[in-house]
Amino acid sequence: MAEPIAPGGTIGVLGGGQLGRMISIAAANLGLKTHVFCPDPDSPAFDVCARHTVAEYEDEAALTRFAASVDVVTYEFENVPVRTAEIVSGLASLRPGALALATAQDRLTEKEFVNALGIATAPFRAVASPAELASAVVALGLPAILKTRRFGYDGKGQVRMVAGDDPEAAFTEIGGVPAILEGFVPFAQEISVVAARGPDGGFAAYDPCWNAHRRGILDLTRLPSGLLPAVEARAVAATRRIAEALDYVGVLAVEMFVVGDGEDAELVVNELAPRVHNSGHWTIEGAETSQFEQHVRAICGWPLGSPRRLGRVAMTNLIGPDVEAWREILAEPGAHLHHYGKAGARPGRKMGHVTRVSPDLPSIL
Amino acid sequence: MAEPIAPGGTIGVLGGGQLGRMISIAAANLGLKTHVFCPDPDSPAFDVCARHTVAEYEDEAALTRFAASVDVVTYEFENVPVRTAEIVSGLASLRPGALALATAQDRLTEKEFVNALGIATAPFRAVASPAELASAVVALGLPAILKTRRFGYDGKGQVRMVAGDDPEAAFTEIGGVPAILEGFVPFAQEISVVAARGPDGGFAAYDPCWNAHRRGILDLTRLPSGLLPAVEARAVAATRRIAEALDYVGVLAVEMFVVGDGEDAELVVNELAPRVHNSGHWTIEGAETSQFEQHVRAICGWPLGSPRRLGRVAMTNLIGPDVEAWREILAEPGAHLHHYGKAGARPGRKMGHVTRVSPDLPSIL
Repeated sequence: MAEPIAPGGTIGVLGGGQLGRMISIAAANLGLKTHVFCPDPDSPAFDVCARHTVAEYEDEAALTRFAASVDVVTYEFENVPVRTAEIVSGLASLRPGALALATAQDRLTEKEFVNALGIATAPFRAVASPAELASAVVALGLPAILKTRRFGYDGKGQVRMVAGDDPEAAFTEIGGVPAILEGFVPFAQEISVVAARGPDGGFAAYDPCWNAHRRGILDLTRLPSGLLPAVEARAVAATRRIAEALDYVGVLAVEMFVVGDGEDAELVVNELAPRVHNSGHWTIEGAETSQFEQHVRAICGWPLGSPRRLGRVAMTNLIGPDVEAWREILAEPGAHLHHYGKAGARPGRKMGHVTRVSPDLPSIL
Repeated sequence: MAEPIAPGGTIGVLGGGQLGRMISIAAANLGLKTHVFCPDPDSPAFDVCARHTVAEYEDEAALTRFAASVDVVTYEFENVPVRTAEIVSGLASLRPGALALATAQDRLTEKEFVNALGIATAPFRAVASPAELASAVVALGLPAILKTRRFGYDGKGQVRMVAGDDPEAAFTEIGGVPAILEGFVPFAQEISVVAARGPDGGFAAYDPCWNAHRRGILDLTRLPSGLLPAVEARAVAATRRIAEALDYVGVLAVEMFVVGDGEDAELVVNELAPRVHNSGHWTIEGAETSQFEQHVRAICGWPLGSPRRLGRVAMTNLIGPDVEAWREILAEPGAHLHHYGKAGARPGRKMGHVTRVSPDLPSIL
C-alpha cells in the first residue's frame, strides 16, 4: 500500500467532464492540485484544475508525461482504454485499479462477476450474432433489452425488444457488436448505493437512494429511498462485497432494481460504476462528506469521511434546455444550483443539477 | 444597473490568495469562469481558475487586457491601488465599487464615514507626527493603539501604547506614516457581521458571529454569538446602513466590539472589510449559502441566497504549523478541513481552516 498523499500533492484525472470538475473542486478544498487529461479542449474540468493536457487517450507520450507529473491517477468514466490504464499504472498508482475498470467496461464480465459473488443480476445471455440473439430471445422471453457489451452509458448502445421484433434488425441497430440480451426485470423501483473504500479496506456507504430516469438518463434522486432499513442494509452489504472482491479504492456506485416490496424485496444489480456517480451528487449539500471529497480521501489513502445524511434530499438533473431555468432556481430559497459551465445545451446533455435538502421528518414507521 | 451576468461568463478577481481561491470555486459551482490577477506566481487561486495573469497591480497594460477579458471585476483584498481600480473600472464593472475601496483603505476616512452614519467607533485622533501623537495621547489617554491609516491587516501596521511609552519611538515603529491613535475600548467581546447587498438593493446578513483573535489574527469564530437577539438586530441594522451608504455590491464584513452586556450592550465598529471575510468561512458548511457563493451572486446581479444558519458552528483558523494536524482533522467525524494549498507554512500565515457544525441546541433563554 502506497504512502498517503499529502496536501500539495497532485491528482491526475482522466476525463474532463462535470465529474472531473467536481473532483477537482473537492481536491482543491483539501489543498491538492489536479492535472486533468482530456481530448476535448473545451472540457469543463479545465476551468478548475492547476494543469491540463489536451490529448487523445491513445497518445502514449502525452500519457507518460501526465502520469509522471502526478501522485495518483483516477478517472471520471469507466471507458478508459485498457492500454491507457496500463501506461498510466506503470508510472503512478491507478485508483480505482485495473480490475475494477476491466469488470465495469464489459457488461458480460460485470454480470458474471456479480453473480459469482452470489448477488443477483437480470437474467442474461451473451450475444455475438443475430442467430445467438434469436436463441437468447427464446431463452429469456420478451420484452428484453439488447445492450452492447462495451461503451454503453445513459441509455446509449441499447435497444428494447418486444414481441415481433426482428433479431437481425435489433442486432444491426446496436452496431452488430458483441452484446448481451438482458431479460425483463419487473422492478418496483430503482436505487443505487454510492460507497467508498480506502486502500486499508475502510468502507463507508451513503444511504441508498431512489432514482428515476427519463429517456435513459437519471432525472431525479431522492432520499430516503423508502425501502425498509433491512433491505437498505442488504443493498449496502452487496455493495461492500463487490468493493472487496475488486479490492476497490475510491468511490463506487452500484445501481440496483428492487423487485417486490416490504421485507421480501429482492435486489437485482443492474450496473456498476467504478467512479463518482450522478446519483451521488446530492452528497455535496446533503451529506457530511461529499462523494467527491470521499473519492479524494480514498484515493489519497486518507481516512474516509462520515457519509451521514443531513436531511431529506432531492437532486434533479438539468438536462439540455432545463438549465435555462437557472435564474428561477437561484431565486428559490434552499435550492442549490450546480451549473457545469458547458457551452452548448444540446438535448440529452447533462448541463447541471439542483439539490434541495430539507429537515428529516420524524419516521412514520 | 448592468445586466446580470449569465453562466459561462467570467469574473475577474484581483488577488490570488485563499479568498480568491474560494471565490473561484464558488463561481465554478455556478457555471462561471474566473480570471485571477496576482503578482505572485505561486498564488493559491491559480489552481482553480480558468485563466490567470501574473503581473504587478501597477502594470497598466496587463490590467487593461485583464479587464477587457472579463464581465465583472472583484477583489479579495482592500488594498487595491486607486489607480488599479480606476483602470479596471473604465473597462468592466468593479464590484464592490470605488467608494467602498476608498473608504476601507484609510482608517481615518473609514471612521469618519461610520461616525457620520451615527454609528459608534473607538474614539480616535488623526496623527501625522510625533507631536500630534503626543497630543492625541493626552486627549484619549492610555492604553491606546497607534495604527497606520493605510495598509494594515491582521494586526500589521499597529502598535499598542501604554503609560510611559515614548510617542517618538511609537511613531517610528509604525514607519512614520500618517496614522490614527485609537482610544481604548473596554470591550466584552468581538463580533462581526458578514452580509451581502445586490445591485438592486437586496440585502442578506448572516447571523453575527463571535470572534477570538490570537496575536492579532482571527483564531476562532463561533455561532451563535451569545448576544441577545435585539443586540444582534442592531449589529445587522448598522451593517445594512453602512452597505447602503456605500451603495455596496457584494459581500461586506463589519467587525465590531461589544461593550457591556445584556440589552444595553453597545456596539462599536472596529473595521470594515469590503470583501469576503475570514469570519465568514463558516458559511461554507454552516449556512444555506456560503459567503463566496453569495458574493458571486451579488456581483453578478443574481438573487441573493438564503443566509440561514444550519446549526451551531465553530470555525478555527489553521495558522502556520497548525496545518500539520491535517491528518488528525481528517479523521475527526464532522470536521471539515479546508487546506489552501500554500507551499510554506511560515508562522502567522493562514494555511487553512476547519469548520465544525453541530445541531442547534434548544434555546435556553
